[in-house]
Amino acid sequence: MLYLIGLGLGDPTDITVKGLRAVKACSRVYLEEYTSVMSGGKEALESFYGRSLVLADRDLVEQGAEQILKDAHETDVAFLVVGDPFGATTHSDLVLRAVHAGIPYKVIHNASIMNAVGCCGLQLYNFGETVSLVFWTDSWKPESFYDKICKNRKSGLHTLGFLKQSVQMFVSRGKKIYEPPRFMTVCQAASLTEDTVCVGVARLGSDDQSIRTGTLRQLESCDLGAPLHSLVVTGQLHPLEVDMLRLSAEPGALGHLTMVDGSTYTS
Amino acid sequence: MLYLIGLGLGDPTDITVKGLRAVKACSRVYLEEYTSVMSGGKEALESFYGRSLVLADRDLVEQGAEQILKDAHETDVAFLVVGDPFGATTHSDLVLRAVHAGIPYKVIHNASIMNAVGCCGLQLYNFGETVSLVFWTDSWKPESFYDKICKNRKSGLHTLGFLKQSVQMFVSRGKKIYEPPRFMTVCQAASLTEDTVCVGVARLGSDDQSIRTGTLRQLESCDLGAPLHSLVVTGQLHPLEVDMLRLSAEPGALGHLTMVDGSTYTS
Repeated sequence: MLYLIGLGLGDPTDITVKGLRAVKACSRVYLEEYTSVMSGGKEALESFYGRSLVLADRDLVEQGAEQILKDAHETDVAFLVVGDPFGATTHSDLVLRAVHAGIPYKVIHNASIMNAVGCCGLQLYNFGETVSLVFWTDSWKPESFYDKICKNRKSGLHTLGFLKQSVQMFVSRGKKIYEPPRFMTVCQAASLTEDTVCVGVARLGSDDQSIRTGTLRQLESCDLGAPLHSLVVTGQLHPLEVDMLRLSAEPGALGHLTMVDGSTYTS
Repeated sequence: MLYLIGLGLGDPTDITVKGLRAVKACSRVYLEEYTSVMSGGKEALESFYGRSLVLADRDLVEQGAEQILKDAHETDVAFLVVGDPFGATTHSDLVLRAVHAGIPYKVIHNASIMNAVGCCGLQLYNFGETVSLVFWTDSWKPESFYDKICKNRKSGLHTLGFLKQSVQMFVSRGKKIYEPPRFMTVCQAASLTEDTVCVGVARLGSDDQSIRTGTLRQLESCDLGAPLHSLVVTGQLHPLEVDMLRLSAEPGALGHLTMVDGSTYTS
């Protein structure tokens, strides 16, 4: 049996009891650590599980899948993924290889940023398509994520934006990942401006998680600390959502808002 | 401290180690069971935790919050929610009451249907707005969910549809919750027909979970068994998504598909 086990978001104790039992019972346990990293890393997990883990880098997962699946007809193998195995990054390819080799598989789910972001107070069913935020270079200026954010906003929906790990490096060095003037130009129709209320989320689920609500301009100068970071661009807000956002709001961030009932809200 | 603890989706062992430790350490533990129910119910959870739980019905949560929060300045109180505390149903109101009473709170996340649905093989970031599917009565025929599904489809996005518990009753008695002709009339522009590929999901995360991929017409006659059920209406499909859907597909379901690259796919 191949077990795909989500580790959740915070620390080693975020694994489920079911997941922990599987980890202890499997003959080989792989840790996928190239799409997301857990605080304390491999060593902290090994110490908590009381067993050693094999680090599965991208090459091993993409080219060496038969090594991971070796003998999984007769023995149990676990593949550990930070968050949920079918969260932001899916591991469909490994599942398909297992199925085609006649190896049964089982998924043990856990929280991922895709659902845990609800803790900022925005309702998950009001989110539209998720986007990846990328850093513009001189030669690479992708625009598709702006369009998706604008499209969501036009429908009144919130957008969860992932900052890719390569981008995190830039962010943590204090560089900008978006250019507000560009935002304003493209998105006038969606009223997406520097004053748009956004939520910056860092290290969600861990003890030192950081949630900050502010205008896009305010969040530019917010230091949320170490990765991983995500950015939520809000759509139309429900009064209860505003009340929740207030818990993490910068001064004045929630100044003038258009509510879901069309009224203007002034804090 | 008020702990809001997600129980995950399957059985009592789906709680996280962190969550279980909190449950054991809290002086009072409430179980919210009116929005979703876990297999085995309260008794199975009490037996696994080795302690008794207080059932929190809607009245207690909405009108008796001060009873739940009583003395939570000095003692630890846990509030257990099937799935994630900020998943399909949020508990913002309880959080706000705690904060306004000066009681700190902590969320221990877990999987919810909002992210676990990814295990059917559809990529989570390609989902648009979530909808609630309701049963039409003679006097109540809401249409907004059709429009949202069509809007998502037009953007190539998948739609996760929840069947409300009141609807589950009808479904489990073999009644229809949608009317295909109506679907076709409203949604022609979005090419949403009886041949649209959908995924029926039941009891996700439990040992007897059921995932069936078929056309809307095929799924009408599929018996997915006991609640809870969700229905995913697919948008534009990526080849890897099709390969995953094939694992749960009814014969002929994936006959003619338009792929994300514009090509037509014939299985």
